[in-house]
Amino acid sequence: MTTVINNLCIIGTGLIGGSFSLALQRAAACKKIIGAGRSEKTLQQARQLKIIDDYNTDISAAVKDADVIFVSVPLGAMRTVFEKIATGLKQAGNEQAIITDAGSSKQQVQLLAQTIFAQAGKYFVAGHPIAGTENSGPAAAFADLYKNRRVILTPVKNTDKEAIRQVTELWQVTGAEVETMSAEHHDKVLAATSHLPHLIAFGLVHCLENLDDIEDIFRFAAGGFRDVTRIASSDPTMWRDICLNNRQPILAMMKSYKDEMEMLYNALQSADGEKLMEVFEHAKQTRDKFTH
Amino acid sequence: MTTVINNLCIIGTGLIGGSFSLALQRAAACKKIIGAGRSEKTLQQARQLKIIDDYNTDISAAVKDADVIFVSVPLGAMRTVFEKIATGLKQAGNEQAIITDAGSSKQQVQLLAQTIFAQAGKYFVAGHPIAGTENSGPAAAFADLYKNRRVILTPVKNTDKEAIRQVTELWQVTGAEVETMSAEHHDKVLAATSHLPHLIAFGLVHCLENLDDIEDIFRFAAGGFRDVTRIASSDPTMWRDICLNNRQPILAMMKSYKDEMEMLYNALQSADGEKLMEVFEHAKQTRDKFTH
Repeated sequence: MTTVINNLCIIGTGLIGGSFSLALQRAAACKKIIGAGRSEKTLQQARQLKIIDDYNTDISAAVKDADVIFVSVPLGAMRTVFEKIATGLKQAGNEQAIITDAGSSKQQVQLLAQTIFAQAGKYFVAGHPIAGTENSGPAAAFADLYKNRRVILTPVKNTDKEAIRQVTELWQVTGAEVETMSAEHHDKVLAATSHLPHLIAFGLVHCLENLDDIEDIFRFAAGGFRDVTRIASSDPTMWRDICLNNRQPILAMMKSYKDEMEMLYNALQSADGEKLMEVFEHAKQTRDKFTH
Repeated sequence: MTTVINNLCIIGTGLIGGSFSLALQRAAACKKIIGAGRSEKTLQQARQLKIIDDYNTDISAAVKDADVIFVSVPLGAMRTVFEKIATGLKQAGNEQAIITDAGSSKQQVQLLAQTIFAQAGKYFVAGHPIAGTENSGPAAAFADLYKNRRVILTPVKNTDKEAIRQVTELWQVTGAEVETMSAEHHDKVLAATSHLPHLIAFGLVHCLENLDDIEDIFRFAAGGFRDVTRIASSDPTMWRDICLNNRQPILAMMKSYKDEMEMLYNALQSADGEKLMEVFEHAKQTRDKFTH
């Protein structure tokens, strides 16, 4: 790490923002870290846990001296937060501050940034760390969260090269492996690997919950059921926001998945053992090939 | 354990049958254990691993002195194996031998037993241990597989009470918790907790495998995707057999699941955040309630 950030502002000091801060502090990569967000209680807790040096509940005020602004709030809060950042930076004459985020969908966020920030979002670098746990809040944060995990950046043509370099470097300092791709490709891949599986898990539990046998279903559940449904315990608000923000790519994946289930249903209805065997064998081969 | 079995015959000496044998041996619950099955290589391996004392590739011959016969073969092989057992027991005048199985679906197996065995299957006790690993074969067997796991027995009115008692006792000796329910209820619960989740996992991987992005999908897969798809690495033959054997209950569950996915698709298409939120919240509550 050659660059040391004088003033880092973290908006949203929960698991994602808090872990980012702790990892950077361990590497002495920032001189001062200011927290911002809606909840003063969360910010107080974050300061107590030494995730931030100080905080400000007024986002526009919090960003005025920032060199880098890290936005780790739910996607549904992104527009409001971006607007407050833009107002604060403009008032402070600090419109070259680097802004980056950690949202799970990127096309919509990129669009927001282009609309809201100065120079069509030239200093905004969209990012997404593929990391997390089922816990949330400042107390869940830990410095190793990003170690050996992938972080995807989705800059556009207009994005400032030096801003990309600095954001890349910061993520590398946390121990993450940084990859760059288009927001479109990111959203398609994440729709398949993360968003669709969450809808599947929520949907499976929801369709079973009104059965008379629901108690027995959980009582006799083996490892397979527990694995498939684990992510149905994820945060509903966060996942509603992700679905709404990455609607088209998820709809495309769901369409193909619904057709697949229809095909399997028909194969089973006509007792077509050969067809079932073909699907199961292909699936096993694909999974074994890519996971071993 | 009060009863000691003089002669136990295990047909299918892989993970399920082998672990059953090792657990009973540890408790000195059997004087002699004979293996039987199609593959001499597997039987030789099982003898070498001390899973069985001796073996016979001729099932009809293997069962002639058996007090208890444990059938742990894939569902697709059940009919042939049952017929060979019936022939052997009849020839040996040993038709009061207790027969039990470990198949993942029970109505079809019960029907087979009633048709094939003497006295409409009076000495047959249908069973299903809710245990297993992703490995198979004699080398995968271990004495603790059934420890604290549930075993479901699905006897019918005609089933001999003493046979039920003995099979229950044998399973308890392995460390399992035995529960009794109707074959119909078993098949419905297992369709929901095990069979549908396997179809979901196979289907998800299969519908993604032809995407251009399949390499990226596995490269950027986080824990959620890995969990949901883990069981897509299961044995295709075994799962084809289970699907075909428990067709109607699985079709009923799939129908309800397909409707659920259709509803989620429509909610997403119309950007109905309230509906998504309601489904996600209910699912999370149900899962959290039953798993904590």
